[in-house]
Amino acid sequence: MFVGIGELVTCDLDAASDAPARAASAADDTRLGIRRDAALVVQDGRITWIGDSADAPAADRRINLEGRAVLPGFVDSHSHLVFDGDRAEEFAARMTGERYDGGGIGVSVDATRAASDERLRELVGRRVAEMRAQGTTTVEIKSGYGLTVEDEARALRIAREFTTETTFLGAHVVPPEARDERTAYVELVIGPMLEACAPHAKWADVFCEPNSPHAFTEDESRTVLEAARDAGLQLRVHGNQLGHGPGVQLAVELGAASVDHCTFLSDADVDALVQAANTTTATLLPGVEFSTRSPYPDARRLIDAGVSVALATDCNPGTCYSDSMPFVIALAVREMGMTPSEAVWAATRGSAKALRRNDIGGIVVGGPADLAVLDAPSHLHLAYRAGVPIARTLS
Amino acid sequence: MFVGIGELVTCDLDAASDAPARAASAADDTRLGIRRDAALVVQDGRITWIGDSADAPAADRRINLEGRAVLPGFVDSHSHLVFDGDRAEEFAARMTGERYDGGGIGVSVDATRAASDERLRELVGRRVAEMRAQGTTTVEIKSGYGLTVEDEARALRIAREFTTETTFLGAHVVPPEARDERTAYVELVIGPMLEACAPHAKWADVFCEPNSPHAFTEDESRTVLEAARDAGLQLRVHGNQLGHGPGVQLAVELGAASVDHCTFLSDADVDALVQAANTTTATLLPGVEFSTRSPYPDARRLIDAGVSVALATDCNPGTCYSDSMPFVIALAVREMGMTPSEAVWAATRGSAKALRRNDIGGIVVGGPADLAVLDAPSHLHLAYRAGVPIARTLS
Ligand SMILES: [Zn+2]
Ligand SMILES: [Zn+2]
Repeated sequence: MFVGIGELVTCDLDAASDAPARAASAADDTRLGIRRDAALVVQDGRITWIGDSADAPAADRRINLEGRAVLPGFVDSHSHLVFDGDRAEEFAARMTGERYDGGGIGVSVDATRAASDERLRELVGRRVAEMRAQGTTTVEIKSGYGLTVEDEARALRIAREFTTETTFLGAHVVPPEARDERTAYVELVIGPMLEACAPHAKWADVFCEPNSPHAFTEDESRTVLEAARDAGLQLRVHGNQLGHGPGVQLAVELGAASVDHCTFLSDADVDALVQAANTTTATLLPGVEFSTRSPYPDARRLIDAGVSVALATDCNPGTCYSDSMPFVIALAVREMGMTPSEAVWAATRGSAKALRRNDIGGIVVGGPADLAVLDAPSHLHLAYRAGVPIARTLS
Repeated sequence: MFVGIGELVTCDLDAASDAPARAASAADDTRLGIRRDAALVVQDGRITWIGDSADAPAADRRINLEGRAVLPGFVDSHSHLVFDGDRAEEFAARMTGERYDGGGIGVSVDATRAASDERLRELVGRRVAEMRAQGTTTVEIKSGYGLTVEDEARALRIAREFTTETTFLGAHVVPPEARDERTAYVELVIGPMLEACAPHAKWADVFCEPNSPHAFTEDESRTVLEAARDAGLQLRVHGNQLGHGPGVQLAVELGAASVDHCTFLSDADVDALVQAANTTTATLLPGVEFSTRSPYPDARRLIDAGVSVALATDCNPGTCYSDSMPFVIALAVREMGMTPSEAVWAATRGSAKALRRNDIGGIVVGGPADLAVLDAPSHLHLAYRAGVPIARTLS
């Protein structure tokens, strides 16, 4: 039993429409389903009662949160946690304007392949623990640094130990040893690799980016996604990150749950996302733009048009080694013009929707007790106190 | 005794020149005085031995840091921690483009005056603890939300309970009740207020900003600073934040230890800071630009010219309620073009210099054991892992 909750952000699906976020101003918190001076009872990991602090029933264990804010635990719907190897020097060189030679991902692939299962398990576990310590209660984890049948399947087996939201990303990049045999690599991905990986994955994803020679064209992406769908996986897409391209349209056409990045969008792309708002979410990953000094996606354009928007970290060793959802929320407000309430919604309910999960991202009676607590009186402090570790998982 | 330090950043004054930071690239870590696989012995709060992990002497208590990086504790040379009242709504309104009516600081002044000593002490203590939890071991604390003789003296008495680096900032703004009596307010500041505050302060500061009607002109600023100097206080200046102005030149002329903000600088201002590099540091506060969506100061111009540069948070309820030095370092690298090593130096030795302290900001035998440890193998991770709470005080 938790009492003395200064602000309870429920993202309650009954209290608020589940249509895309359209908060008009910072004061428009109606979508967040906020209760003040609230209390809640947790039994066996589920929420059994929500109400006013003054009405709280008797309980054995009564924790007074002394006015702190409680939110749904953050849902990080896009991460690449299964990797070994340190690329801090590459980051520092990029920040100081040195030429980036594209060799970066090879460092991660080599180190990941060379790592023992035990080592990878320890690294993923440490990263998941770090996320939980910052208020994240659900994390999606992709493969994509193995890029062989055995190494991709291993990555997903290990990821599955930490989450049900596992994503097969054999089509992350064409691996260095296959650069001259793209077609053969795609055949490998949709053949033996998919067969070995499908049992351990809920999702398949592809880095659809004709603007990068290492990523996949529209045709290659379609081939991979259709094969994965036929193998029973649900779909997600990395699209429109580095330039205009076919990723968004392909994601919508194939009914993918999410298309992620969405930095370079035509009006037709935005229209397609509006039409598909009940099916396909646009997931924005501003930690990447921070860490690569790139232009941020235009969240306002998407939200104002009626697109379903989510936020996630994209935690990975190359373009964003931050796994902090509070930092992503602060960036969304500072750099992408999202209101604090839109950002919180996108990091909880919006991100749950991007994983096709109705049971998480909100605080409701009967739901899991996936909760974040802030050392602060309201959700506004996530952006107001940028960089300060005020969020943690409440358990 | 700490062993297994993967990277020991000493900022050693013997190993590296104490001239302004001029690291040419990320790889140029010479100023940081880095040792690998190091160990150090702490006795009674002081460092008594530094060397290779393999050569570490026997010790009763031996803590293996397992490859983590150890740095000098961060020195936050600019903060306004003595305040009460919540201004998160004002922040949210500013982020969503609503007009800012300038009434903000009045909220803090009213709430601070109304708070009990016990309440203010608790708030400051909580903030200092939050800073320590993020690796800061020295903090400067200003008054400036009391703006009466009694309330300014009280703020400094309470601040002094937490740090020796206390700063009298009666000339923060002209308080709302004195808007029509500026001259009388300045007389109050240099008369009874200075007399009541000087015993509790090491420093005096003034918000010299002709571009704000609530701050102080060049003449007013000079009057306050000269009176404070005559009362035995050392000087600091808030200058050139909102537009071009006289702050930098005044700070250099009066031999102030630091002039803080430095966003709008003429070539003559930069020249003056270069000439005064041994005396006057330019302290940059990029958390303010993040939190107010303002242009960042041009750190590269300053460093390349030979100016002494420091970093600090400016933690305050109006323009930056972040007290995270790691976040400031990440912003310095991302937004101001500083290399990671320049940013670390500016947040430790540079900031110590801005407080005229030779005993802190480095790790040397005989010095205090003011140490930060990272859950990471190198100082590069402070920017690489932006937003992730990897730093804490080592004790
Ligand atoms: Zn990604
Ligand atoms: Zn200040």
